[in-house]
Amino acid sequence: MSAPPSDRTRVRRYNQNARYDRETVHAILDAMPMCHIGYVFDGMPYVTPTLQWREGERVYWHGSSASRMLRSAEDADVCLTVALLDGLVCARSAYNFNVNYRSVMILGKAEKISDPALKEAHLKTMMERFVPGHWDRLRPVTEQELKATSLLSMPITEASAKVRTGQPEDPPEDYAFPVWAGLVPIRQDVQAPIPDPRNLAGVVMPEDVLKFRVG
Amino acid sequence: MSAPPSDRTRVRRYNQNARYDRETVHAILDAMPMCHIGYVFDGMPYVTPTLQWREGERVYWHGSSASRMLRSAEDADVCLTVALLDGLVCARSAYNFNVNYRSVMILGKAEKISDPALKEAHLKTMMERFVPGHWDRLRPVTEQELKATSLLSMPITEASAKVRTGQPEDPPEDYAFPVWAGLVPIRQDVQAPIPDPRNLAGVVMPEDVLKFRVG
Repeated sequence: MSAPPSDRTRVRRYNQNARYDRETVHAILDAMPMCHIGYVFDGMPYVTPTLQWREGERVYWHGSSASRMLRSAEDADVCLTVALLDGLVCARSAYNFNVNYRSVMILGKAEKISDPALKEAHLKTMMERFVPGHWDRLRPVTEQELKATSLLSMPITEASAKVRTGQPEDPPEDYAFPVWAGLVPIRQDVQAPIPDPRNLAGVVMPEDVLKFRVG
Repeated sequence: MSAPPSDRTRVRRYNQNARYDRETVHAILDAMPMCHIGYVFDGMPYVTPTLQWREGERVYWHGSSASRMLRSAEDADVCLTVALLDGLVCARSAYNFNVNYRSVMILGKAEKISDPALKEAHLKTMMERFVPGHWDRLRPVTEQELKATSLLSMPITEASAKVRTGQPEDPPEDYAFPVWAGLVPIRQDVQAPIPDPRNLAGVVMPEDVLKFRVG
């Protein structure tokens, strides 16, 4: 994640984790709905976890209109970071121990979307990301609910991705050191849905619920 | 994660996710080594994923001495946030859709630890967190490596946790709406270790590698 560079070779290797291509950035955003939003309030940094979703070349997040985080972020500079921990990389030295991960950092100004019709359209897209087709099955959204929801967005312009995969990369001489090295993978395991015991009799789970994926 | 409050009842319910007790804060920090560090650089917010570990009432993180993040954070105000996404909560309305999660936010000033012996002791504790007893099996750490590693820490004083668990909480009238509701749990699945193909012949995996847990 932050293996310290010890020499020019390691510096190059470290930088090789950095990727700026659009496909990589998009794939990471699409793999993990949870993001961490950083903002400055009274000169101090705050990092709040919330949900993000991507629509083309923009990223969206939402929350309570009463939320300090969302009010602070409006029209302000924010940093939206998404990261997945993919495994523990057991190297031959403590120094080269590492983790496999995928991360994206997006810098920009948070733009508020106030138009109720636009808000509804974007929230519907968010729902599509979680359970396709589910919006129309749900108790319809009310005007008051839309009002109570703040929706923010920014373009995916100043974005960078970092990805580390695979086995440890030890310096050549360390491969002769007699210690086990390897990789312990971590996966996000989406488990079988658990129906709400308060469901009405005869209500059937839409197959689309099984399409929810993370990771 | 950020279900918007619609009335006093929901405001209360939302606040009920907030917990400040030490045990909850510690348990979340111990469950997820990946954290997101927020800091301010030239007035702008940045959020960097890195690894954290807890020792008693303090939290530690490390990285390259060359890292802008670590140099910016030194003696500066930071926000360290840890979050786990535990499930998708399918409510009866889009408005009450939510996620189950555990999160901790710690505010404070990052203190740099420069003494090489102290640095080594703390890095050993980090290793204990990942693979107990492994430090002494590894190729010993060098003076140069300790120098190239920055170690930061802060007390877990200004800390708050938020936890959401369980089924959706819909307003009473929504329970009559004929749509499926339920929970889709997400777990961090630590998989079987994959040995490095470059391991020396006869090298055996320490059982301690199987003790690595996340979630």
